[in-house]
Amino acid sequence: MNQSTICAISTAAGIGGIAVIRVSGDRAIQNASKIFCTFNENKNLFDAESHTVIFGKIKNGKNEIIDEALVSIFRAPHSYTGEDTVEISCHGSAYIQQQILKLLIENGCVLAQAGEFTQRAFLNGKMDLSQAEAVADLISSESQAAHRIAMNQMRGFFLNELQNIRQKLVEFASLIELELDFNEEDVEFADRNELGKLAFNIEEYISKLCKSFDVGNAIKNGIPVAIVGETNAGKSTLLNVLLNEERAIVSEIHGTTRDAIEDATNIGGLMFRFIDTAGIRDTKDKIENMGIERTYSKIEQASIVLWIIDVSQSVENARKMLPEMIERCKNKKLIIAYNKIDISKSTANISIADNDEIKQINISAKEKLNMELLQNILLETAQIPETGSNDIIVTNMRHFEALQNAHSAIVRIQNGLKQNISHDLLAQDIRDCIFHIGTITGSITTDEILRNIFSKFCVGK
Amino acid sequence: MNQSTICAISTAAGIGGIAVIRVSGDRAIQNASKIFCTFNENKNLFDAESHTVIFGKIKNGKNEIIDEALVSIFRAPHSYTGEDTVEISCHGSAYIQQQILKLLIENGCVLAQAGEFTQRAFLNGKMDLSQAEAVADLISSESQAAHRIAMNQMRGFFLNELQNIRQKLVEFASLIELELDFNEEDVEFADRNELGKLAFNIEEYISKLCKSFDVGNAIKNGIPVAIVGETNAGKSTLLNVLLNEERAIVSEIHGTTRDAIEDATNIGGLMFRFIDTAGIRDTKDKIENMGIERTYSKIEQASIVLWIIDVSQSVENARKMLPEMIERCKNKKLIIAYNKIDISKSTANISIADNDEIKQINISAKEKLNMELLQNILLETAQIPETGSNDIIVTNMRHFEALQNAHSAIVRIQNGLKQNISHDLLAQDIRDCIFHIGTITGSITTDEILRNIFSKFCVGK
Repeated sequence: MNQSTICAISTAAGIGGIAVIRVSGDRAIQNASKIFCTFNENKNLFDAESHTVIFGKIKNGKNEIIDEALVSIFRAPHSYTGEDTVEISCHGSAYIQQQILKLLIENGCVLAQAGEFTQRAFLNGKMDLSQAEAVADLISSESQAAHRIAMNQMRGFFLNELQNIRQKLVEFASLIELELDFNEEDVEFADRNELGKLAFNIEEYISKLCKSFDVGNAIKNGIPVAIVGETNAGKSTLLNVLLNEERAIVSEIHGTTRDAIEDATNIGGLMFRFIDTAGIRDTKDKIENMGIERTYSKIEQASIVLWIIDVSQSVENARKMLPEMIERCKNKKLIIAYNKIDISKSTANISIADNDEIKQINISAKEKLNMELLQNILLETAQIPETGSNDIIVTNMRHFEALQNAHSAIVRIQNGLKQNISHDLLAQDIRDCIFHIGTITGSITTDEILRNIFSKFCVGK
Repeated sequence: MNQSTICAISTAAGIGGIAVIRVSGDRAIQNASKIFCTFNENKNLFDAESHTVIFGKIKNGKNEIIDEALVSIFRAPHSYTGEDTVEISCHGSAYIQQQILKLLIENGCVLAQAGEFTQRAFLNGKMDLSQAEAVADLISSESQAAHRIAMNQMRGFFLNELQNIRQKLVEFASLIELELDFNEEDVEFADRNELGKLAFNIEEYISKLCKSFDVGNAIKNGIPVAIVGETNAGKSTLLNVLLNEERAIVSEIHGTTRDAIEDATNIGGLMFRFIDTAGIRDTKDKIENMGIERTYSKIEQASIVLWIIDVSQSVENARKMLPEMIERCKNKKLIIAYNKIDISKSTANISIADNDEIKQINISAKEKLNMELLQNILLETAQIPETGSNDIIVTNMRHFEALQNAHSAIVRIQNGLKQNISHDLLAQDIRDCIFHIGTITGSITTDEILRNIFSKFCVGK
């Protein structure tokens, strides 16, 4: 193999105590050795054993010291990429990181594309495609549930099951294709009963996986919750209280490119994304009505609507709006939170909805009353089943599409068996199903698929 | 020593391909081993040699896998802190980073304070105080010049020189104190001539260092440039062009806490900080005049004032304002940039100032005409001397104050020698000088000094 040797900053962008620059490829050690000299003259990168760390100086062409750094050596195939790999752990200044990258490039490395390290790991057989995709999910996971799903996928549970199915289908396909060779003689090498049973099991399994996508998608991207209510109902106070519960996590992901990250929070291991809306109220004013229409259209994006009502002020107004609100939330879960119970005198009986499907709760965002209860109601309403450590949940749109295609093929196989269709058509449907499953595991890949997948990675992984 | 074992995320906050969590202290290996198991059953952290890396799984108390990680072992004293150190290189998800930190804390580690790793390195004699402070400067360095100064300081050039001076002073102090024991006998063990020569050399050296602080401060914090001019003179266009030159560096430091970072740029290895101002013009309008006053007060913060004049429009207006502007920029450098020469017909002779100290240049920010020339003028005007790789430049306010105190003491010594003052007063002045130099190198420290210094570090270093 005569591939380029790639380099990139692998740690998060910005200033930290340290940063790690990764170099991978045939010439990784050679190129790194040109900019590095050890303090101990008896040591050098060429002789270093795999999985050892050497302390030394990074120098530029003018023999100026750029930094003191720790360099770790990983020799092929015992590295993440499967190639010779060097990791340079330097001081985390933006300037130093840039300079070291520049020096590596001057000495024969090329800047890695997004995901190129993981792509090389895939191409060198260190992981299959669904595992490689799980790496990206793992890195962006923000909650326990999302993390667990990505970890299961990375550890290959998903893969093993699909490969198992695929193997069985391949066997049947071979037998049926063998029948084609004996077309004139009307023999059946493939037991149609067995194939029928297999198709039944596969259909059941794949449709379970397809159904898991809704849940998987909610876990991965967060459960969208629209917060609606009049302007003075206390929406932002409530939002702040909800977001404060997980300040550490929120501040950790500061500086990423997600715009609305400040409005997402982790409740009980699940990510909720809060969609703030303009105030609504029952009004005849035309312009105000336009704003309210915008709010309603934002409700469309949510799966849960949290309606905040100021019990000290606007219960009657809210009662008037109830029918409209119920209509707007037809396919959503509606939670009504009666806020400001700390200052209201009418907490006794304020339920305005007579509907079991609408959850109602008395709170005070300001005094943080019943906040835990509200969080539990949100969790309950999200209806995400507890994910066990071996559950397989599909979170990836590409996998979902491939599974849907595989599902169509398996349904065609089932119908074909019932209608006793010809060998060649049946074989074609089985091959189709095998193909679509193969695109998930990476047994079948095209350059385009690979480009699409790895371009979504961050550079440096 | 029975110190706590500390842990922290050492890489930049946010999501990256990988993140590094550092653990240091007597129980570093023991605590880390509780959450880590290797894939190779023959390997474990306890038996691992220093400077080796082991691949394995991070597990929580419920035996769930949190991540697959590389763990590097550094055994005391061969580590950054001088203590046993473990570095865990995990996937860079915010969730994983938090979980691993949490597991470490559950297993006996405590969260490191800002700068605590470096503070331990200092306390364990791995570096002196000025070197430790240089680590923080190195991490925050944004330009070649700032980087070089910090690197020199970290590599101990500054320290060696000061320790040298201090040693010589200590010798004289001992001799003079010996004279005190023989007070009645009027002997002189310390050669006053030699002491005079030494004092002369030290005074010269320290006052050179003190003078370097202005330069050092400009290099470290950037050279403040106020951009003034009428609203439509093209200030923001010019600012964008200047900032675009170094987009890579700027985007790298995105996500840090510095507010005005988008208005700083690296020109020729020096950092310039641009102070944007409201439009000014010659007016009688009271309210507008208030805005102009604000602009003038911003000029106070700058050392260079870049006055943009739209040559297609407002040359006459500018001419009227010239006397006021010169008055306002009395202690600053003034550069006049005549902008929009692309659309103006009067580029021939537009100099409005007849003053050698004012630099004047014709530009077009929109068409990027003469931008390089403008950058050169800025660099020239900044008058930062070329810093060689061995130059010592003081950038630290604490060092500057200590040097000023040491300088007062050395001047007192010189005067004392001239006036032939008594042994004990002379000895006191020498001890004073030794003390102040010692606070820089860390030979003299108090808890308060240490707290102040290390609290400015980022956590994880």
